[in-house]
Amino acid sequence: MADSTIPSWKKKLHEIIYEADTPAGKAFDIGLLIVIVLSIVLVMLESIPRMSERYYWEFYTAEWIITAIFTLEYILRIVVINRPSRYIFSFYGIVDLLSTLPTYLAILGGGHNLLFAVRALRLLRIFRVLKITRYIGESQRLLLALRNSRAKILVFLYAVIILCVIMGTVMYLVEGPENGYTSIPTGIYWCIVTLTTVGFGDIHPVTPLGQFIASVIMITGYGIIAVPTGIVTSEFSKSSARHTHVNTQVCPHCNESQHLDKAEYCHNCGNLLNE
Amino acid sequence: MADSTIPSWKKKLHEIIYEADTPAGKAFDIGLLIVIVLSIVLVMLESIPRMSERYYWEFYTAEWIITAIFTLEYILRIVVINRPSRYIFSFYGIVDLLSTLPTYLAILGGGHNLLFAVRALRLLRIFRVLKITRYIGESQRLLLALRNSRAKILVFLYAVIILCVIMGTVMYLVEGPENGYTSIPTGIYWCIVTLTTVGFGDIHPVTPLGQFIASVIMITGYGIIAVPTGIVTSEFSKSSARHTHVNTQVCPHCNESQHLDKAEYCHNCGNLLNE
Amino acid sequence: MADSTIPSWKKKLHEIIYEADTPAGKAFDIGLLIVIVLSIVLVMLESIPRMSERYYWEFYTAEWIITAIFTLEYILRIVVINRPSRYIFSFYGIVDLLSTLPTYLAILGGGHNLLFAVRALRLLRIFRVLKITRYIGESQRLLLALRNSRAKILVFLYAVIILCVIMGTVMYLVEGPENGYTSIPTGIYWCIVTLTTVGFGDIHPVTPLGQFIASVIMITGYGIIAVPTGIVTSEFSKSSARHTHVNTQVCPHCNESQHLDKAEYCHNCGNLLNE
Amino acid sequence: MADSTIPSWKKKLHEIIYEADTPAGKAFDIGLLIVIVLSIVLVMLESIPRMSERYYWEFYTAEWIITAIFTLEYILRIVVINRPSRYIFSFYGIVDLLSTLPTYLAILGGGHNLLFAVRALRLLRIFRVLKITRYIGESQRLLLALRNSRAKILVFLYAVIILCVIMGTVMYLVEGPENGYTSIPTGIYWCIVTLTTVGFGDIHPVTPLGQFIASVIMITGYGIIAVPTGIVTSEFSKSSARHTHVNTQVCPHCNESQHLDKAEYCHNCGNLLNE
Repeated sequence: MADSTIPSWKKKLHEIIYEADTPAGKAFDIGLLIVIVLSIVLVMLESIPRMSERYYWEFYTAEWIITAIFTLEYILRIVVINRPSRYIFSFYGIVDLLSTLPTYLAILGGGHNLLFAVRALRLLRIFRVLKITRYIGESQRLLLALRNSRAKILVFLYAVIILCVIMGTVMYLVEGPENGYTSIPTGIYWCIVTLTTVGFGDIHPVTPLGQFIASVIMITGYGIIAVPTGIVTSEFSKSSARHTHVNTQVCPHCNESQHLDKAEYCHNCGNLLNE
Repeated sequence: MADSTIPSWKKKLHEIIYEADTPAGKAFDIGLLIVIVLSIVLVMLESIPRMSERYYWEFYTAEWIITAIFTLEYILRIVVINRPSRYIFSFYGIVDLLSTLPTYLAILGGGHNLLFAVRALRLLRIFRVLKITRYIGESQRLLLALRNSRAKILVFLYAVIILCVIMGTVMYLVEGPENGYTSIPTGIYWCIVTLTTVGFGDIHPVTPLGQFIASVIMITGYGIIAVPTGIVTSEFSKSSARHTHVNTQVCPHCNESQHLDKAEYCHNCGNLLNE
Repeated sequence: MADSTIPSWKKKLHEIIYEADTPAGKAFDIGLLIVIVLSIVLVMLESIPRMSERYYWEFYTAEWIITAIFTLEYILRIVVINRPSRYIFSFYGIVDLLSTLPTYLAILGGGHNLLFAVRALRLLRIFRVLKITRYIGESQRLLLALRNSRAKILVFLYAVIILCVIMGTVMYLVEGPENGYTSIPTGIYWCIVTLTTVGFGDIHPVTPLGQFIASVIMITGYGIIAVPTGIVTSEFSKSSARHTHVNTQVCPHCNESQHLDKAEYCHNCGNLLNE
Repeated sequence: MADSTIPSWKKKLHEIIYEADTPAGKAFDIGLLIVIVLSIVLVMLESIPRMSERYYWEFYTAEWIITAIFTLEYILRIVVINRPSRYIFSFYGIVDLLSTLPTYLAILGGGHNLLFAVRALRLLRIFRVLKITRYIGESQRLLLALRNSRAKILVFLYAVIILCVIMGTVMYLVEGPENGYTSIPTGIYWCIVTLTTVGFGDIHPVTPLGQFIASVIMITGYGIIAVPTGIVTSEFSKSSARHTHVNTQVCPHCNESQHLDKAEYCHNCGNLLNE
């Protein structure tokens, strides 16, 4: 990357666009974050029928400005990098391209709805600028705790899904299509709605037996919600225990470790810890 | 099982069908898992009226192919085992039989709905092939934590049910049949729906007093959801604590393991641990 | 209680009726538990209109049999005890009386609904026979953990109620009576339904601003559900830690404590622990 | 504050009104708390149409009595304090003023609804009198645990919001306006309702694909509810661990406390702890 044949302006721009350590790189990332959030808000508001009718031209103009900025950014990213193919065919390269294309394709005409869907992909761009947040450390610790409990969570989810398949089938047989349980997949959908304590109420048991089974499912769901919580909590406690109770000081006289952070003398032999 | 009078092909087949340690046994289990999942998906899709009408013949053919595979497997399991009666009258033996019979009975005619219900029993076969999953260890630890906290969870569920019976009766008396609380069991059902924070909305309080009592029930439910979580979490933390602080020292004299970290002498035979 | 002037049959009956240590006392309690549960189930079923119409005479007969049993028990309790007034005016004495009276009053005529309500008081009798359960120890530990975290839970509930009053008022002002928020108490009721993640759906925000505020309330509710759980869990962990890691053996040679439960030799000096 | 030029009645009143250490100050605070709660209940009841019609004059009178009390209190607070501007422009000063003004403005006529809204601000006054509760210590510990886990909770909420934006957009595209998902913000609102397991049911998926995605969202929400709980619980456990494992040994030489349980020498001055 630090090849001497690369002109210095290219190096400088690379640092600004791809990194976030320098003030300029940080400013670029923050600016990009604002434009991305604006573009997302724009797509959101445009989806409201009343808004898109009244402010048609405002949306049209803003859309083209944002597309121009994204296009410029996309070209710069290709120009600046040494091996453009590595960027173009990366996950973010494709997302970046798909963020700009729909506006251009809209001129040629074509399915508006599909283009709209593709434009919503801009949401994924938000992950790109997460590197500037102050909370990277915290989020990594969160992810680590989740990753460590991954196997347990998968086993739990597997059990939940099997339970939902069985109970959904039972409810389909008990309540039947006349009470809204039109098929087994619908029964399973209802069972997931119920077990997770969401409870939309679009489908609900009507027969006494169905209501009894539903009660059992609900109490089960209420009880087993403890399981993922227990898993993640014990994982958190472990990782935070590892994190907080560590004091690496070792007494130079008796090799006793595990001193308090504020200790100046060894609690085992009484000698000074830091001579 | 390793009787010399048993022909070797029978031994081999027994190993493949009933165990999962050899490559062939593993392949058999994975193949069976796929057929079982397919048969379940088939039953699910067939329960959707639109699907069963349009693809009648496809479902019919697939149903017979799967039944043939299950029948073959059932016969093999009986032929291969030494004492067939032990398999036939075991839980899985009965489930396996019930998984194949409905299709045959359907030719003779008979209540379609009941046969459908029986066919849904195939779901239970999925437990048979769980032995191949990598997550057996994790699921056993989960089950252990749940089993250890069983007594506490039962006491909690008992208290929840008594609470629901009392509050369901109160709501029946307060709201009455004109607001949907048609009987005490219905009131109890509503109370379970509310306390577990599911909240279908098919029945909901209308009178101010009923809404006030409902608020108390909801806040109670929101508060006591902490109890099962607390139980399971503390159980998890304990079991993972037991698990992580493992001391791998083994006494060179009596092979006793599980020593305290600070132990210098074996707690079993009294000899020095590290000579 | 062990007064010599009391005839022995009275002492014996007292032991059977009021205690649960002897086989006869246990049998009495179990028998009473069954009758109480039956009487509750009876009241439940009688509340279902279809049932009470069809099985009018069966309910009538069963009601009188149970009332006779309860009356006999009530008289026995008074006869057997030394100071009857202590029983009659105790909580359970009043509940026991109220469990028998409604049936007698029904002959004289009178508000059926009120008598029904009073009869539902029989539910409270179930607490009387809880002393026979094996789970007393567990339930006491549960109650202890809850009692220890009482102050924290009250502070939390207080904060939740203030939050609901404020947000309920805000929603009343934002949505107004035309969207179902007919008054501030209704708004508060809705806010409790939402914050506790119950979500009946009988009232729900319609305006964009109302939906935005509702989103904030929901995410708040989703976040602060962690607080009671955290409180109870940490209380459980403490009480179970106190409970499990205790081994009171002390080495008679070096006074080292904290031995494993199975230890026979001291891990500190290598001498026998129990000579 | 203890300036000698201030007359003693002013000092006395200041102590009563602004502090809560003396019996008179405590009585004042409790009396004020009662009036505030009454005024809030009054506003609540007045918002119920049936009530405000029937008891118009009762509400009118009570409103003026409470306004008189609040006005008197407001004047006293200004008179008694040394620098009135510090109180008038403080948060509570403005809230206190806004609690009295609406009733006066109502005579002059004016938007009733807005005045009503302003009057609801009296709710905020309740925070003023919280200083008398016994639970200050507990609430501070709760707040501390929440503050310590703030960064983790923010990261979590950020992830939840991004997830809701993405899934809400997906649901808008899958279900479309014909099934109630009228715009992307509506889709996001629905996704928050679902992920937090509230589930109003005002909007719910109708297409099979939408129901499948909803199932995934619900199970995700059911799973990740563990994360905030895990965060707060581990924070609680830490703070309570710090709290319970207190070692009351104090060094006889330097009065340093908080020694490790096994410490023999003071970690601060190096002298023997138990001579």
